[in-house]
This record gives sequence, C-alpha cells and structure tokens, in this order.
Amino acid sequence: MKKRIAVLPGDGIGKEVVKGAIEVLQAVGERFGHQFYFSYGKIGGTAIDAAGTPLPDETMELCKESDAVLLGAVGGPKWDQQPLHLRPERGLLKIRKELNLYANLRPTQYYSSLSDTSPLRKEVIEGVDMLMVRELTGGLYFGKPSERTQQNGEDAVVDTLFYQKEEMHRVIKLAFELARKRRGKVTSVDKANVLESSRMWREVAEDISNQYPDVVLEHMLVDNAAMQMIKNPKQFDVVVTENMFGDILSDEASVLTGSLGMLPSASISENGPYLYEPIHGSAPDIEGKNAANPIAMILSAAMMLRLSFGMEEEAEAIENAVNQVLDAGYRTRDIASFGKKQVSTSEMIEEVKATL
Amino acid sequence: MKKRIAVLPGDGIGKEVVKGAIEVLQAVGERFGHQFYFSYGKIGGTAIDAAGTPLPDETMELCKESDAVLLGAVGGPKWDQQPLHLRPERGLLKIRKELNLYANLRPTQYYSSLSDTSPLRKEVIEGVDMLMVRELTGGLYFGKPSERTQQNGEDAVVDTLFYQKEEMHRVIKLAFELARKRRGKVTSVDKANVLESSRMWREVAEDISNQYPDVVLEHMLVDNAAMQMIKNPKQFDVVVTENMFGDILSDEASVLTGSLGMLPSASISENGPYLYEPIHGSAPDIEGKNAANPIAMILSAAMMLRLSFGMEEEAEAIENAVNQVLDAGYRTRDIASFGKKQVSTSEMIEEVKATL
Ligand SMILES: CC(C)[C@H](C(=O)O)[C@@H](O)C(=O)O
Ligand SMILES: CC(C)[C@H](C(=O)O)[C@@H](O)C(=O)O
Repeated sequence: MKKRIAVLPGDGIGKEVVKGAIEVLQAVGERFGHQFYFSYGKIGGTAIDAAGTPLPDETMELCKESDAVLLGAVGGPKWDQQPLHLRPERGLLKIRKELNLYANLRPTQYYSSLSDTSPLRKEVIEGVDMLMVRELTGGLYFGKPSERTQQNGEDAVVDTLFYQKEEMHRVIKLAFELARKRRGKVTSVDKANVLESSRMWREVAEDISNQYPDVVLEHMLVDNAAMQMIKNPKQFDVVVTENMFGDILSDEASVLTGSLGMLPSASISENGPYLYEPIHGSAPDIEGKNAANPIAMILSAAMMLRLSFGMEEEAEAIENAVNQVLDAGYRTRDIASFGKKQVSTSEMIEEVKATL
Repeated sequence: MKKRIAVLPGDGIGKEVVKGAIEVLQAVGERFGHQFYFSYGKIGGTAIDAAGTPLPDETMELCKESDAVLLGAVGGPKWDQQPLHLRPERGLLKIRKELNLYANLRPTQYYSSLSDTSPLRKEVIEGVDMLMVRELTGGLYFGKPSERTQQNGEDAVVDTLFYQKEEMHRVIKLAFELARKRRGKVTSVDKANVLESSRMWREVAEDISNQYPDVVLEHMLVDNAAMQMIKNPKQFDVVVTENMFGDILSDEASVLTGSLGMLPSASISENGPYLYEPIHGSAPDIEGKNAANPIAMILSAAMMLRLSFGMEEEAEAIENAVNQVLDAGYRTRDIASFGKKQVSTSEMIEEVKATL
C-alpha cells in the first residue's frame, strides 16, 4: 500500500519523538512492503515563530490532502504570555476543530514490565485495560462567549460550556461501538447533579443504550470517577466523557501505567483523516536533551496503522517490539527503575527498530 | 463557652454520621466545660419530602442565627429524576451561596495506621500533608445561562463558567494566608492554555503573590495536577482552584488516605457562620446499615471547634482520639484491612468517645 502521512512535529520534544515514529514506520514499510510518504508541516510555537500563526493554512491543506496526521506536541514557556488566540495550543485546538476530530481515543493498559514505575500498588493496576473516549471538539474548549466582561461595574470573565445534542450523540455512540468489540461496558462520566449539559448527556447515553442491549451502561459522576480511576481502575472498560472532564481524567489515568511517556492517542472524525498524537506535552524542560520517551509517539503510529490503514498485523508488530524492548529492561528516564538499563531517546528508537 | 450549632443531617448516611459528631461534641463539652446547643434543620431529599423544597426558609433562618452549621450529606436515587432545581444537591448549592461560603477547605493527611488501605504505595503517600482550597460559590455551578437551547434548529445545551475577579481574589488570598501558617507554598490550578477565566485566575494569583514574598506560588494546569496528585502528592502544601476543578481534584485526593470516609471539610465565609461537612456523600447503598464511617463527620466537628470557636485544644483532643482509635486497630468497613477489628458506625463512635 501507498499512504501519505502529514507530519507535524510541533514544539519541544515533539520533534524528537516524531523522528522515532517515522523511523519505525520506515522499518515497518520495508518489512511489510508498504510505501509511506511523509510530508512535514508546522504547528504551534514553531509555526508562530515562522509564520505568525499557530496553524498556517499550508499546514491545514497538507493535513486535508493526507491519509493521516502524526502530531508531536505543542507549547512552551516562550509563548505563554501571548493572548489565547496566539498561543501554540490554539493551533492544536484549531486543527481538531477543522478536521472535525470529534473523539479522542486514549487506551490505558497495564505493562507488567513497568509495574514498578507506577505509584499504585501492583494488585490495583494488574490487568488494567481501559479505553477513554473523550469528546474533542465541543464544550468549554470552544463555547462562546469566552471573554472578559463586567458585572455591576466589576471585572468579570466568562467561558461557555456549549454542546449540540448531536455532538454528544456521535461520540457516545462511538463508545458503545467500541465497547461491543471489547468487554461490553460503557461508563459515561458527567456531573448530572449540577450541570444541565450533563443531564442532556445522560439522556443521550440512555437513548443510545437502548440500541445496544449487549452493552452495559453505567453513569458515574466526574468527582467519583476521579476517585474510582485510582481506587479500582479494573472496573473500567470504555469510559466516555465530555471534553474538559476527558482532559483531566485521561491525564490522571496515565499514572496507572507509570508515565505519560507511554500513552498514545487517536483522534477520529467521520470522514478522515484521523490525527495521532502522544498524550504527553512538549516537555520544554527536557527539550534537546535526548531524554524524552518516544514510545507514546511510536504507539500512536501503531494506532494509525490499525485505525487509518487497517494494517492490524503491522500495528501489532510495533506493539510487540515495544513490549519486547521493555521486557528486555530498556528504559528512558521517565520510566527508569533500579536494575534496568537507562537509555536515551535515540537509543530507545534504535532498540525498537532493531527488535522489529 | 456557649455555642449554638445548626445541625442538618440531610439524607442517607448523613443522619448516622451526624449523630456521631454530636455525641463526640457533647463529650468534649463536658470535659472542657462548654455548652453546645444543637438545633435541627432539614435539607436535601428529606426536605423535599417534608416541605417540597431542598432548602426550606426555616433551615436558612436557623443557619443564619447559629454560630456554626454541621451538615451530613444530601442526595439519593429517590430524587435523581427530579429537575435540577428540585434535587437534593440544589439545597447544598443554595446554602453555600446564601451563607456566602466562598471557600471550601479540605485537608488531606497521611495516616500511618491506614497506609495499607490506600491504593498507592506507602513511599508515595508517607508524609502527605495537603490543604485543598476550593472556590465554592462561583464558576460552572452557578453561572447563567444553564439551560436547553437551540442552534440552527438543533437541540443544544449551555452551562456558564462565570467569575467576578473579586471572587477569585478573596479565595486565592485566603490560600496565601493559610500557606503562610503552613509550609509556605501555594499551587494554583487552572487551565490557562484554554480558558479565559483561567487566564484571569492566573493574573489574580500573580498579583496577590507580590504581597506575599514569603510564600512560593506555582501554577499548574488542571490535567497535570490530576496526574501529580497521585504521582507525587508530597509536593503539595496549599492547592487553590476554582469550583469544578476543586470538586474533581479533592475527591481524587481522597484516595491518598484510603477512604472518603476519613475526610472532613470546612466552608468559610467573610462573616460566618461557617459550615462543616464530610466530603463523602449520602451513600444510599449503605444507608441504615450502621456501616458508614463517622470519622469524616467527627473530624469536621473538630474543624468547627478550631475555626469557628477558636477551641484549639478541644479540636486536638478529638483528632488525637481518632488517631488513637485507628492505632488501636478499629476500622469501619471502608477502611477495613486484614488483622484489624471491623466495627459498625455506632461502635466506632463509642470508641472515639471512650478514648476522649
Ligand atoms: C495542550 C492542551 C490544549 C490539550 C488539551 O487540553 O486538550 C492537551 O492537554 C491535551 O490533552 O491534548
Ligand atoms: C453533591 C454535589 C453537588 C457536591 C459538589 O459537587 O459540590 C459534592 O460533590 C461536593 O463536593 O460537595
């Protein structure tokens, strides 16, 4: 097969980890006889510096013409003082919106080889296998107004949590579809005892649930979910929630595996292209130090092979290689532990390639 | 001293745990020569059933005339289908608003005797001593509009995250005052890379920080905070955040001690009365089973003695008694562990009283 992949390294360690994904994809292409064409675009702070905007039109065009998008990370202290519309993060939010990436899928799995790097007890996390489905193009992230205002002559500010019912419908339905192929359970997270939007969310979930008699639906309040995620993570199969709750809970879930540096994500739309990015950020503190963990990005590339190109065997080859490298004791700094071999970003990439 | 205390047991296990606090306060009163007058009011589902509203006027009057308010818990499946304004939770939100309880203080401390009930490794939680300061009368909880609406003829819904700058100011300032009496560090949690309200929040925190050269201010994004809370909880001293983020993070923090059933809270205003409640809910599943943990409520009463009545020694007497009872191995079901003596709610109350 021939596939065109838009590559947006972004800022900070984005460039370093993206390099890993590309090298691994090259190796997979050679082994399985595929041709991957990579074309590079700018996003985030790098784009602000070069073109004065966090998401130049050329980048958008590149993405729309490609079969899939790989994204590193955006952001950094250099741009923190900019107004919101000129921040690197705005580039990420805009690309999500323009490509209509309504659902972000974040799998969290237990790695027995990493059980010693998690702050949780082994018996709590052993066997965890959870898929977070986060709504990605609505809610507080995009609602208007989002601005400074006045109330009785006093300074005030407003952000808006807005959803169309249909936006809830498509992401919750997707969660049910995914649950069907897994263990058949959906936990829908909301704050229905306070928010009107959550009450609508719950109604939509109930409606959809009627069409999936084979899937169990459970509702959970977001505060309780934040607790249950740590107390008893094995209870979760597919978790579906709105944008901001999903942002918080999926980062929280990352502690289960021990490091953000391990976690890939896929953002999907109705008609493609999909976008793949690690859930970690640009980590400016370790930028250029060859210390970042490339695994989240490499596993994001594996998700791309599976979900965008239907290359199941190829995806598994990458996932197996990662597992073997971990089993062999190779560790980047974030997952280092006593008695293991600590390696740099580029050494980790080499190990994965060699194992392929 | 003579003190008038409004007691609002509410729903579910609220009644059972409130009983414990009252008995313990009686015992303290006798020992230290104080007179506590308890007067009872209805709130939540119990009030809906009796008076058709989750917060009757009599209850509000009772609270306003009292020196402090003790609240059990509200809510239950019986009232889940009610519209939002007729739900038990609305009584809680309304009392917070009417008494102007702008800050909710939730201390989380490590109990060495309970280290085996936490899902976290002992070395992660050993020595944790954190105070969460949650804004309690603003944000998404109270912003208008909060309603169903239409967009281009499609069903939609909106909630509003609204803050006056002054509302941010008073709660962040309080966090700095509290940090000064502790380890001198404030972590301000926001989502300043996305929300305009968070950008204002950050500015206000910076402003206040200038007046507290002896306190270190650190900003943390809410997704990162949800992760750090578990990964490295010892880094936190005082954490201050807006209402919804605080709701999520403080329940999450409860896993550090092993059980929600251990955690008290105080909600304070500018001119009193303050309100004290456990952070757990009404737990309808164990209602009437004499299985609830009364310690969170008892420790809330201790916070009342300290913060509302200036009775430091009396508060410590309660806290010491609780510690001794735990050290002696008594455990309610939620904190039960192998080799310890499992007791009922009333037995736990008796043990604490006897130890006083
Ligand atoms: C960088 C930021 C805008 C983004 C978000 O909040 O969605 C990030 O935290 C994520 O989860 O992808
Ligand atoms: C019962 C509910 C409305 C309440 C809240 O969300 O504030 C509770 O979760 C709490 O934290 O006190």
